[in-house]
Amino acid sequence: MKSFRKELWFNLPERMALENITPQVEQCLAESGIREGLLLCNAMHITSSVFINDDEPGLHRDYKKWLEELAPFDASPERYHHNRTGEDNADAHHKRQIMGREVVVAVTEGQLDFGPWEQVFYGEFDGRRKKRVLVKIIGE
Amino acid sequence: MKSFRKELWFNLPERMALENITPQVEQCLAESGIREGLLLCNAMHITSSVFINDDEPGLHRDYKKWLEELAPFDASPERYHHNRTGEDNADAHHKRQIMGREVVVAVTEGQLDFGPWEQVFYGEFDGRRKKRVLVKIIGE
Amino acid sequence: MKSFRKELWFNLPERMALENITPQVEQCLAESGIREGLLLCNAMHITSSVFINDDEPGLHRDYKKWLEELAPFDASPERYHHNRTGEDNADAHHKRQIMGREVVVAVTEGQLDFGPWEQVFYGEFDGRRKKRVLVKIIGE
Repeated sequence: MKSFRKELWFNLPERMALENITPQVEQCLAESGIREGLLLCNAMHITSSVFINDDEPGLHRDYKKWLEELAPFDASPERYHHNRTGEDNADAHHKRQIMGREVVVAVTEGQLDFGPWEQVFYGEFDGRRKKRVLVKIIGE
Repeated sequence: MKSFRKELWFNLPERMALENITPQVEQCLAESGIREGLLLCNAMHITSSVFINDDEPGLHRDYKKWLEELAPFDASPERYHHNRTGEDNADAHHKRQIMGREVVVAVTEGQLDFGPWEQVFYGEFDGRRKKRVLVKIIGE
Repeated sequence: MKSFRKELWFNLPERMALENITPQVEQCLAESGIREGLLLCNAMHITSSVFINDDEPGLHRDYKKWLEELAPFDASPERYHHNRTGEDNADAHHKRQIMGREVVVAVTEGQLDFGPWEQVFYGEFDGRRKKRVLVKIIGE
């Protein structure tokens, strides 16, 4: 069994942003030399996500609006107890639960084994600072 | 390490439907001959889900109603920017995020290592056409 | 390839509770002797979750309030069809979908390969009885 590990770093200028990281994940797979196995890609921070969906700007705008409705940003200590600790990112911890922490992708014949529109995204919900995604691949 | 890959195809007559695919997933595991490892089962389309929950028709009715409340179908271009592209399935992209893309299941002694009520479902949110689920198993 | 399996049992006195199980998961990894691979940790019941987020009591209070808003407890047969079966836990099946069934964690140099604040939680949404979590590790 072979294994491969790499961290991808991001520093997005907006508080909430959805970034297509498929090329970086494919680069990891190429570097690993693994042809058959499983690839895990996860946010290493608890206010961001890794998820798979469509690379369509209108949809991303819809996601941001929807997440803001489901878990609004509110830095005050009234809505979220978490923000009584001096933090202002309780909403980001909620948004990340909707969009998920991680994806597991099949590796087949040295490729990400994807359907026609699957793309991997980093979902940032508390940006404007350096944050990381982990790529771990096992197989042979 | 052994690996196994199979696609399961569906063409559900309704827009939204939840289908128990546990027998097909168990069949894949039997075909693979893998006794210890991990099984990944994921939707290959971005408007459908694979998830694990209870095979109870009342619960499925509840899920559909709840998903419709959280992300209503609306083909008009007003509610969802995604539907300004000519699509009408923005809601399905949202519903899929709630229910998830994939499950990873332990394989132990040649069986899906499940609790008493765990069953695997294909969640279709934009049906009436051919769509696929991937089963990938690694282990030995 | 090595594999390891262990069940963790819980009997939480409250209906809804979030319990940090990171020490038990780390103990499993130590027992397994696996240094490189993937660790799956999943609820074996369909009214509970395993998820990764922050160990901050205010945030957990926020999560419980938010989940109660998204899927309120209601034992009556009016709101949820599932509760016409004699069950009263339809809400718990919904809450579990938001928080997720499972996490997959990279194992690197014999450790859970975590970012600075990642902790594993058992999310109980229908407690006051014995329930289980599965830890499965593969690698070498």
